[in-house]
Amino acid sequence: MIEKPLSIAIAGLGTVGIGIIKILESNKQLIKNRCGRELKIVAVSARNKRKQRDVDLSKYEWADDPVSLARRKEIDLIVEVIGGADGPAKAMVETAIKHKKHVVTANKAMLAEHGHYLAIAAEENNVTIRFEAAVAGGIPIIKALTEGLSANKIKKVTGVMNGTCNYILTRMEETKKSYESVFSEAKSLGYVEADPNLDVGGIDAAQKLAILSTLAFNSQIDFNNILIEGIDRISLIDIENANSMGYRIKLLGVSQISGNILYQSMQPCLVPRTSPLAQLEGGTNMVIIEADFVGQTAYSGPGAGEGPTASAIVSDIIDIARNNIGPVFGVLATKLSIKSISSETASSRYYIRFSLIDEPGVLAKVSGILGEHEISVDRMRQAQHQGSEAPLLIVTHKTRRNNLNKALIEIEKLDVSLCAPVAIKIEEV
Amino acid sequence: MIEKPLSIAIAGLGTVGIGIIKILESNKQLIKNRCGRELKIVAVSARNKRKQRDVDLSKYEWADDPVSLARRKEIDLIVEVIGGADGPAKAMVETAIKHKKHVVTANKAMLAEHGHYLAIAAEENNVTIRFEAAVAGGIPIIKALTEGLSANKIKKVTGVMNGTCNYILTRMEETKKSYESVFSEAKSLGYVEADPNLDVGGIDAAQKLAILSTLAFNSQIDFNNILIEGIDRISLIDIENANSMGYRIKLLGVSQISGNILYQSMQPCLVPRTSPLAQLEGGTNMVIIEADFVGQTAYSGPGAGEGPTASAIVSDIIDIARNNIGPVFGVLATKLSIKSISSETASSRYYIRFSLIDEPGVLAKVSGILGEHEISVDRMRQAQHQGSEAPLLIVTHKTRRNNLNKALIEIEKLDVSLCAPVAIKIEEV
Repeated sequence: MIEKPLSIAIAGLGTVGIGIIKILESNKQLIKNRCGRELKIVAVSARNKRKQRDVDLSKYEWADDPVSLARRKEIDLIVEVIGGADGPAKAMVETAIKHKKHVVTANKAMLAEHGHYLAIAAEENNVTIRFEAAVAGGIPIIKALTEGLSANKIKKVTGVMNGTCNYILTRMEETKKSYESVFSEAKSLGYVEADPNLDVGGIDAAQKLAILSTLAFNSQIDFNNILIEGIDRISLIDIENANSMGYRIKLLGVSQISGNILYQSMQPCLVPRTSPLAQLEGGTNMVIIEADFVGQTAYSGPGAGEGPTASAIVSDIIDIARNNIGPVFGVLATKLSIKSISSETASSRYYIRFSLIDEPGVLAKVSGILGEHEISVDRMRQAQHQGSEAPLLIVTHKTRRNNLNKALIEIEKLDVSLCAPVAIKIEEV
Repeated sequence: MIEKPLSIAIAGLGTVGIGIIKILESNKQLIKNRCGRELKIVAVSARNKRKQRDVDLSKYEWADDPVSLARRKEIDLIVEVIGGADGPAKAMVETAIKHKKHVVTANKAMLAEHGHYLAIAAEENNVTIRFEAAVAGGIPIIKALTEGLSANKIKKVTGVMNGTCNYILTRMEETKKSYESVFSEAKSLGYVEADPNLDVGGIDAAQKLAILSTLAFNSQIDFNNILIEGIDRISLIDIENANSMGYRIKLLGVSQISGNILYQSMQPCLVPRTSPLAQLEGGTNMVIIEADFVGQTAYSGPGAGEGPTASAIVSDIIDIARNNIGPVFGVLATKLSIKSISSETASSRYYIRFSLIDEPGVLAKVSGILGEHEISVDRMRQAQHQGSEAPLLIVTHKTRRNNLNKALIEIEKLDVSLCAPVAIKIEEV
């Protein structure tokens, strides 16, 4: 049974778009064997036709308008690597779906914003949207959640999914330089997005988490209710304190169900040095999944880059060519549930650093307030005095974030308090 | 589009068989949402009907003869968790295929022995065989290789895939006890298979490696040409020496292509302490895959047990229910290549321990012989004298195993040699 080639159009010819062409050319025969049919690039589109690119594009048709590709009859599948939640990317995907073409995309922002609406549209038109490249680059984590672990009720997803943040935190630790100084360094190396808040503000990573949550819990994608904190508030002193207590600080995504409540957070956390998450360097991503029958499984690999991202896109195309075409988010979009959202995170242990004036009775005041809010202390340490300042480190037992916030506001108002306390969640993974 | 239920028969009701029933009952609704159809157990079979089991079997039809299930018209899919390369397991699978039923199995021995023949048969009958549970238990590594990374040419697969060996090696290190003593302990804890050679002899892990190789390299499964060495020859002194040089010893499977030659080995290796493989404890398995575009990705999780193995089986069933049915080994069995096999492993660095008589000129003799066989020395260390014995440790630069073997035989024959040198490969992963 020889099937006809799958006709593909690629919109967006940045590094990822070019990477896709390289793979389809260089592994042509191997991919044909695996698909049982040929994958054929019919046309490409990008903003600037004359830009110097790494591959010979003359054999492919050129379209200035990506949306025009999405209408063309002979095309079966559109690859969207333009980027941006709205604009031409979204217009093209909507048009492609309406014209009953499958879509493969790396666009986490578009999915985080419009994923539910697009999934509904795709399923009404009997096509699918695949997006393995949108989360954790080369790691086939979407497939693991939707297919490899499909027998399980997923309980918790934890992950390090932003290489830039991981680089900055690791560099601060290595070089003992401040956040600002390492951030500038990262920027000059081209590691930071044009809008730095996407990286260091945790937005990019939170978009990825939103996608993983919907797959894990079969709930409607819900980016707006993720608790997001960036790494820009992390100072060297906290990294060093964490270290001396056996932890490292990572920008950690956590998504978990407790009862029927979904908790999603993307924030710097202390993780034990012995955890595989703590040992990640630079651009390596890792996702850990807790599920009812399989227990804990972990997945790691390059989180970005031409090769890994293009690998994920092409593997998605191969899946579609093989006719492995299911609902966009693993179950029909109309069956995705809406979870209750709590205004706070699940209860956790916290690391807290106070800057206090060194005078008698200070400790009693602070611990009194903590006690009133039912926060019990696991470990306490008075760090080295700096003049009249007495830095105080506390590790709490499990507590609710709301209680903690109230206590910290009260403590900040004390006369003996020199500045706002810093609280960082501890995740024992 | 409501599809009819997928009718399933389960043959074998040990822990895994029972685990499958538990999952299908406990996650019934969730699985139905994910499949778009119901998974329905129609009948079960095992040797002893009256054995006390953990689930209520009264609602399922009972068959004494598993082969009879494979013939029944109303059954779509047969789960084989009987075990054994031949006997009733193989008879049932053959019959199921002939009667155009899909097969899901955890039977690595059967696949390592008869996988190619069974794949040909399945594809002739337009059915598939799925076996995620056969390798690394709960980790969806089969799916990662055949689907998640399908865009890539795979270059190398490395893995720790036997929990018993990992337990024994870790315990020896912790307790400073001999291999024999820790082996007895593991046996009394029920960690060792009835035929211990399957575990400590490396057979079980090598069967898994054979399966991963065929998926990675699209070559015919070839268990017989795997270089297999067990862990029974590892002594405490080598574990301690490895440690003091920054390594740990693990039973490591390595499968790689060099040119058109396939190298497959399952043997104890030194791995750097900093490698995630070195940090595995007990029953956790890990597989690392090197591929041309994605680079290196790693997968870890529980390698055995009721929940993880049953999770893999049920996820395979869900795939089939969703109609994700491709060739058994990722490409059509008739298109799997036959690779040239080398009698030796790819060139590597080696740790070697010599037991020599302590007298002048010994070092010159040994290094002379190594030099004659083009083996160059990276590090050399004279360990503490034990009476007149001078233990000598050498780490070589990359060398071919054949050359090394010749040199070691010559050195063993020297008057100054007290016993056979011990050589262990070093894998820098």
